[in-house]
Amino acid sequence: MNFRVISYILGWALNLESVFLLLSAAVGLLYGESAALSFVYAALICLAIGVPTVIKKPKSMVFFAREGFVTVALCWIVMSLFGALPFVFSGEIPRFTDALFETVSGFTTTGASILTDVEALSHCSLFWRSFTHWIGGMGVLVFLLAVLPLAGGSQMYLMQAESPGPSVGKLVPKTRYTALILYALYILLSVAEFIFLLTGGMPAFDAITTTFATAGTGGFGTKNDSIAGFSPYIQWGIGVFMLLFGVNFNLYFLLLIKRWKQALKSEELRAYLGIVAVATTVICINTHTAGTPVGDTVRNAFFQVSSIMTTTGFATCDFGLWPALSKTVLVLLMMIGACAGSTGGGIKVSRILILLKRAREELRRFIFPNSVSKIRLEKKILDREVVHTTGAFLIVYVFIFAVSTLLVSIEGHDTETCFTAVAATINNIGPGLSLVGPTENFSFFSDFSKYVLIFDMLAGRLELFPMLILFSPRIWLKNPPTLRKHA
Amino acid sequence: MNFRVISYILGWALNLESVFLLLSAAVGLLYGESAALSFVYAALICLAIGVPTVIKKPKSMVFFAREGFVTVALCWIVMSLFGALPFVFSGEIPRFTDALFETVSGFTTTGASILTDVEALSHCSLFWRSFTHWIGGMGVLVFLLAVLPLAGGSQMYLMQAESPGPSVGKLVPKTRYTALILYALYILLSVAEFIFLLTGGMPAFDAITTTFATAGTGGFGTKNDSIAGFSPYIQWGIGVFMLLFGVNFNLYFLLLIKRWKQALKSEELRAYLGIVAVATTVICINTHTAGTPVGDTVRNAFFQVSSIMTTTGFATCDFGLWPALSKTVLVLLMMIGACAGSTGGGIKVSRILILLKRAREELRRFIFPNSVSKIRLEKKILDREVVHTTGAFLIVYVFIFAVSTLLVSIEGHDTETCFTAVAATINNIGPGLSLVGPTENFSFFSDFSKYVLIFDMLAGRLELFPMLILFSPRIWLKNPPTLRKHA
Repeated sequence: MNFRVISYILGWALNLESVFLLLSAAVGLLYGESAALSFVYAALICLAIGVPTVIKKPKSMVFFAREGFVTVALCWIVMSLFGALPFVFSGEIPRFTDALFETVSGFTTTGASILTDVEALSHCSLFWRSFTHWIGGMGVLVFLLAVLPLAGGSQMYLMQAESPGPSVGKLVPKTRYTALILYALYILLSVAEFIFLLTGGMPAFDAITTTFATAGTGGFGTKNDSIAGFSPYIQWGIGVFMLLFGVNFNLYFLLLIKRWKQALKSEELRAYLGIVAVATTVICINTHTAGTPVGDTVRNAFFQVSSIMTTTGFATCDFGLWPALSKTVLVLLMMIGACAGSTGGGIKVSRILILLKRAREELRRFIFPNSVSKIRLEKKILDREVVHTTGAFLIVYVFIFAVSTLLVSIEGHDTETCFTAVAATINNIGPGLSLVGPTENFSFFSDFSKYVLIFDMLAGRLELFPMLILFSPRIWLKNPPTLRKHA
Repeated sequence: MNFRVISYILGWALNLESVFLLLSAAVGLLYGESAALSFVYAALICLAIGVPTVIKKPKSMVFFAREGFVTVALCWIVMSLFGALPFVFSGEIPRFTDALFETVSGFTTTGASILTDVEALSHCSLFWRSFTHWIGGMGVLVFLLAVLPLAGGSQMYLMQAESPGPSVGKLVPKTRYTALILYALYILLSVAEFIFLLTGGMPAFDAITTTFATAGTGGFGTKNDSIAGFSPYIQWGIGVFMLLFGVNFNLYFLLLIKRWKQALKSEELRAYLGIVAVATTVICINTHTAGTPVGDTVRNAFFQVSSIMTTTGFATCDFGLWPALSKTVLVLLMMIGACAGSTGGGIKVSRILILLKRAREELRRFIFPNSVSKIRLEKKILDREVVHTTGAFLIVYVFIFAVSTLLVSIEGHDTETCFTAVAATINNIGPGLSLVGPTENFSFFSDFSKYVLIFDMLAGRLELFPMLILFSPRIWLKNPPTLRKHA
């Protein structure tokens, strides 16, 4: 394990964070808030540690997949630890565990909050919460790759470890350019939403924070009733933009280079939109009551489906009051999640497709034992390796889910609360059902449960394996014989 | 697909069922009950269809794995359909759907009941309910194999399709003898329990029905309060016997041929007992209240863990009233289930071991990408095929679980009810939580939900694939080109 390179990259991540923190401080100064100072202090602390770490470039840049995983996991933990500081300094979230929960929830684009009154926060804190969503959505290290020249091998491994989905599609041969293109597309779509929200009459500050939270599929709002207080026009718009940010960004690149057909024929895209359509229809039929305008029923159903499936977590109504079928549909959407290569969480539509095809193949082999099985996705035969890893992903997902639910239930809350609290965090959604429903928050949990859920948020965002690898003792030996042998 | 052989075997299954039905009729006559006649009628109907079907032996005995799966699935469906008749004839369960639910619940050793007052049933119906558990536990076709001389190839495929667990261990080279030995061990253990219960002062009729329900890990009781009314001595005994029937029967064979060490060193056995010990301890600590004798706490905890883990479903107390942690432990035990090759259901301990080892291997390959992975169980390197199929099993399990929960929730009951109703049926346990808790029953569900749960019980008992294969259209073509090509 090349610890020197890892700490070098972590150092740069901290320097980058200080810039982000200063941006929030600037917002605070604009509004003349004293909380801005807390962000300056936090930025200085980041620099005080970050700058000395990057002054000398490491001699050896040897970097393998394992270094990539460890770097990504540590980077997210470190950035969350330091990102929590301004909340504590300003006293807006005085307890460190709570501040950490809120920051991890921000970076991982979960959107689960421990705050009972969001509207009491200062502008700079609200901006910081939403900005963590925006950075976390496309990826901290993807950003770093775009702006920092690193040695070739390390780039791909970092990108691999941070990108959501079963496989990384390189848009162009150079990883750095791929990262640049991804962020360019991301900024483009974000600006489009910002302008849309302004035209809908949303105040500029709300428009920018809502855009950050939609783009990252995060879900932190600046109002206590999330999106319910805005106009139907704005609600429809946010519903559509959430869907757009849940699409694989590679498809936007294909549109950009005018390969329309390939983009629109994407199997994952069709499955994704198909699920949204079916789920919206089912919930419309299930929740419609006499006397409610049909338009309202459809808008709430579509908004909630889009919000939960893309793992954003915004709400326009209290879906905890919906009938059982609609709630079950939402819980299943939580697990499915958005497309691979998007800013959304969950298992991902393409993984679900691979798993279902894998099961169908197995069934076929029971009928025709000698048949050779090949699984195709997007018309290409999938690498056995990818199918293999996707199977292992499901095992680890179910395992972490089960253990987390067990640990959270020690506190004694009802089954629905424990189960959906884990579902809402490991899939990076935000609100669950019962005590963690859309009108509630996570503040009542014990510190122990909060740390379990913090782990789940990070594990969910980083696709499980990087966080688990940190627990492997062999990773922490500087040069164990097996590592050398296999390097 | 050789439909002639399939109907030949189904015919024998019906003939066998008529014998079982007449046995119940005899019990009814002994108690001078008029319900006995209903069993005689049902037996005659079975014979009227069964005998003509088996009069002529099929010319071609060609039999492959797919024929095995289809035969097993159809056999269980047919036996359940006819086994439900006496309940309808006698008017004790007048609606056919309810009678079918009860019979499927019996054969699949689930033990979920639609009856509100079990004690109102006639002795012959109570006997029949319990007897279906006993036959279903070790397997209808395994029984058929033991008594009926069939061509060689078909035996193995039938055994494979009906035996629980990731792989079938043949005890002796001849499948028929393996079936005979399994049933001999099964009878031996059952007689032991029967004698134990008699020494505990249980009336003979209760002793025999309770033995049937324990041996098959079924859970149908003859009392409305399940096992709660019996003495602590009997409760401890049943707790231990449930555990014994949840052990892989191959281990008893090893003990019989004096390979003690191999039996006691079994990895699955150790994991199974380990989980029971940990779960019992956790529940003891979690449920103990000041004022309750420690002995009672330990007995109830051990009994419930043993009952749920072996998927029996007996109850000595209302665990629906336990704190959240204990309930979550029980739900997880429901999923894990008993050992492979036992009469219990669930995913099975050995499958859980394979899945966890598979996940650990995958994690290792992230750290050492070039390492060659080999997964061992019981000190033997596992066939890739078994690991592969186990992965597919988990996918199908999660998929059926999700779809079933969705379908059952259409009715609008609470999440805990829907989720645990599916968990309790697909894992063949019986009671769940909330509205399907140990003091409740399944009668309130709509016919639609009941059929969903009937499917889940059958799918769970037959390890998912045989029931799914019935939905493949290709299976129903007499001689499709692909079938011929691969045969």
